[in-house]
Amino acid sequence: MMEDITIRFDESIAPEDRTAPVLIEGLPGIGHVGKLVAEHMIQELGAVKIAEITSIYFPPQVIIRENGTVRLCNNEIFRYSGENGSFLFIVGDFQSTSGEGHYLLSQVYIDIAHELGVKRIYTIGGYGVGHFVEVTRVIAAINLDKLRTEVEEAGAVFSEGEPGGGIIGAAGLMLGLSAPLGIEGICLMGETSGYLVDPKSAATVLTVLRKLLSVDIDDTRLTERAGEMEVALQRLLEQEKKSEEELSYIG
Amino acid sequence: MMEDITIRFDESIAPEDRTAPVLIEGLPGIGHVGKLVAEHMIQELGAVKIAEITSIYFPPQVIIRENGTVRLCNNEIFRYSGENGSFLFIVGDFQSTSGEGHYLLSQVYIDIAHELGVKRIYTIGGYGVGHFVEVTRVIAAINLDKLRTEVEEAGAVFSEGEPGGGIIGAAGLMLGLSAPLGIEGICLMGETSGYLVDPKSAATVLTVLRKLLSVDIDDTRLTERAGEMEVALQRLLEQEKKSEEELSYIG
Amino acid sequence: MMEDITIRFDESIAPEDRTAPVLIEGLPGIGHVGKLVAEHMIQELGAVKIAEITSIYFPPQVIIRENGTVRLCNNEIFRYSGENGSFLFIVGDFQSTSGEGHYLLSQVYIDIAHELGVKRIYTIGGYGVGHFVEVTRVIAAINLDKLRTEVEEAGAVFSEGEPGGGIIGAAGLMLGLSAPLGIEGICLMGETSGYLVDPKSAATVLTVLRKLLSVDIDDTRLTERAGEMEVALQRLLEQEKKSEEELSYIG
Amino acid sequence: MMEDITIRFDESIAPEDRTAPVLIEGLPGIGHVGKLVAEHMIQELGAVKIAEITSIYFPPQVIIRENGTVRLCNNEIFRYSGENGSFLFIVGDFQSTSGEGHYLLSQVYIDIAHELGVKRIYTIGGYGVGHFVEVTRVIAAINLDKLRTEVEEAGAVFSEGEPGGGIIGAAGLMLGLSAPLGIEGICLMGETSGYLVDPKSAATVLTVLRKLLSVDIDDTRLTERAGEMEVALQRLLEQEKKSEEELSYIG
Repeated sequence: MMEDITIRFDESIAPEDRTAPVLIEGLPGIGHVGKLVAEHMIQELGAVKIAEITSIYFPPQVIIRENGTVRLCNNEIFRYSGENGSFLFIVGDFQSTSGEGHYLLSQVYIDIAHELGVKRIYTIGGYGVGHFVEVTRVIAAINLDKLRTEVEEAGAVFSEGEPGGGIIGAAGLMLGLSAPLGIEGICLMGETSGYLVDPKSAATVLTVLRKLLSVDIDDTRLTERAGEMEVALQRLLEQEKKSEEELSYIG
Repeated sequence: MMEDITIRFDESIAPEDRTAPVLIEGLPGIGHVGKLVAEHMIQELGAVKIAEITSIYFPPQVIIRENGTVRLCNNEIFRYSGENGSFLFIVGDFQSTSGEGHYLLSQVYIDIAHELGVKRIYTIGGYGVGHFVEVTRVIAAINLDKLRTEVEEAGAVFSEGEPGGGIIGAAGLMLGLSAPLGIEGICLMGETSGYLVDPKSAATVLTVLRKLLSVDIDDTRLTERAGEMEVALQRLLEQEKKSEEELSYIG
Repeated sequence: MMEDITIRFDESIAPEDRTAPVLIEGLPGIGHVGKLVAEHMIQELGAVKIAEITSIYFPPQVIIRENGTVRLCNNEIFRYSGENGSFLFIVGDFQSTSGEGHYLLSQVYIDIAHELGVKRIYTIGGYGVGHFVEVTRVIAAINLDKLRTEVEEAGAVFSEGEPGGGIIGAAGLMLGLSAPLGIEGICLMGETSGYLVDPKSAATVLTVLRKLLSVDIDDTRLTERAGEMEVALQRLLEQEKKSEEELSYIG
Repeated sequence: MMEDITIRFDESIAPEDRTAPVLIEGLPGIGHVGKLVAEHMIQELGAVKIAEITSIYFPPQVIIRENGTVRLCNNEIFRYSGENGSFLFIVGDFQSTSGEGHYLLSQVYIDIAHELGVKRIYTIGGYGVGHFVEVTRVIAAINLDKLRTEVEEAGAVFSEGEPGGGIIGAAGLMLGLSAPLGIEGICLMGETSGYLVDPKSAATVLTVLRKLLSVDIDDTRLTERAGEMEVALQRLLEQEKKSEEELSYIG
């Protein structure tokens, strides 16, 4: 029989080498902001995979790796421990395909975090505003009032009524579900159009997160990628403008 | 593991201070009539929250409070006990997102009610007629024939074939599920267009409910809000009319 | 807690007065053919309700009776025992809203039938052909090859490839699920447009079923209703034709 | 009560006559490529049915056989054992209707395979490219890197980024779920338009599979069927072209 949610820890890693006081969630979502931030940190810090989660609540498909081998869709836990501190990361291919699955998976993540000694979680997401933004704000939400000043001092803002519909998926649920266990929760949402993968928004969130974590992470690769994206976007918009002008000639 | 439905009572409130013979349900629905009535009563009577219900059958998201802190979507139970009698209220952000969840949550509400000594429940809803109505009727349904006269004397009407499709969601299911436990059930549905939040319809339902409960509740705030809504609606309709006239000039 | 499917027998009826060798299923479906046939038989024979089935797999709503009282959506079992023999009937408001629910409810019906001594089930449905039909055929399907001759002699036909997509819902599943228990199953499908409730198709099916059951049931009411329907339909079609002619004038 | 997934082995077949080292999956999917290959092999080899799987995750309907008898939708296991070796086949009417069902059914298939001594599975599918293809490639995916050379030598290709969205359904999940049990998994996907049942693509996959299995299977019937299909398609395309030319006259 298959379990609804399966967690497989890398048994070669000793239980004491799985713990950390802080967990950062960066699953796919709006603008892939959370995914970009978490994966950038994993790469820069050289974090190590310690566990895989598979579930019947993920889409029923496998991913093909570059070498042609397949693996089940999953979410993965990485861990970094070094001079910058100790962090856990949750990243992955997908979030749940059903509402019930969202709750059950988020609860499992919080239970794992609790077991691994986590005292604070950061969930990273995008806040889609439906138009291109020049200056990207980082909107915050917290699960304990006392976290507010710290978050504001790091450069994030609390904006009443934003996002209007609440926070959907793991980024929101993990905050809500961690409160009863006494785990502090901070959600950082990078403003983004919502139309494209947005490394610029991710870079802005990273700036805030670096301050909160007191960690030194190079953001060159992320800003370079943001720059390339910006150029590509600029070209796209100009092309569109040109097409419109030509059309107005014809008209 | 997460339970499918979780009930958390405020432990600081003694079990004997949780009971009441009457429960009023006002969850979101057509015209938010039930929600408006129940929340108005909670506010006017100064009812106190005694329990929260969270569930995987609610949408997978958190709500952001004004101070930037989040909480899980939930349904809440309030209680008032004083010179007007003792009442329980069920209100909340959402109803279930699935058919099965509707049944399971409604059964939990009835089980809680039964445990807390409830002998009668009122479920409040809107009856959407698809056009703006001048004089709002309050349509009733009951789960025991003997309740009919009492309900009619309070000003509600029974109208064969209305609503045609039965009563959907908690307002209906709680009536159906309470019958086997011997709990009396009365559903009051305020006629409403179904297009807008409708405080006028809510005020009309409140008039009927006040008589049934023999309770003295000021409806000033609700009627004021209805008045403002009416003015806004009037302006909207006039504007629309003007636009049409201008269009007919052009035509 | 609520059970996913609940069966409540009328306790005032002794267990030995619940049995019968034959069960007839007439739940809602295409043209409501099954529902019309089963409800007509229940009425004509004066069958008595012996059980109610409620379930979280039915739509989450209550039905309002003429007197304003509500009841949960349900499926009901009726029983007739007299000079014509002994029959059970399954009728109701709805079928399941989910695929899984269809299977689970159909299995429960077969388990009940088995327990009540049923040796043969008839499931009645409509076969929607997408156009109005002059002469209504009764298409049959069976769960044991040996039933074929008997069914053909009663006036039903086996038509290879009809219905093309198999038989959906309880009418099909009950046949399939009863085979392992050794219960004979016959499905009779009245040809119908699929656009309207079709008492004419129901009357034709009844003619076949009467022969199979060797039971004498007056079909006056059903044929009268079919006649009225025919007149209404004729008028509708003429009106449509007239409108088209008028339009061709204008054109 | 009904089990969510039921496996019924033919009890007349001794347990030792159910085993095989290789399993081939050919359930319905894009272009019905897998279904065509597996059913062709079953027919040519004269494989024997040894088990049936029914499930609430299949569509809620029955299939009507040519003789008018019905059977539940199912998946079936066939077995061949002879001079060509020993093979198991999984074929059937449908795949699951839900994501969760896909996972649960695929896991059951892998568990059965494991129990029956299977060391390698082949899953066969179509790779829909959205246009008609002259020369059909066979795209491969594997669950162990060491299988690559063998698969390439048999004529299949690994093409990075194809299929882009991973492999959906049983063909993919069975590969992913068999890896932890040490079962080798190879997925062969015949390129196909995705618009039509494609025996030509199936014949190409068969050529590759024959080499991998070192088995001698006549493909005459499959190629004949592919030829007929080709002729029908050619006629269709010519007709369409003619209609367009006629239209351009009018235009």
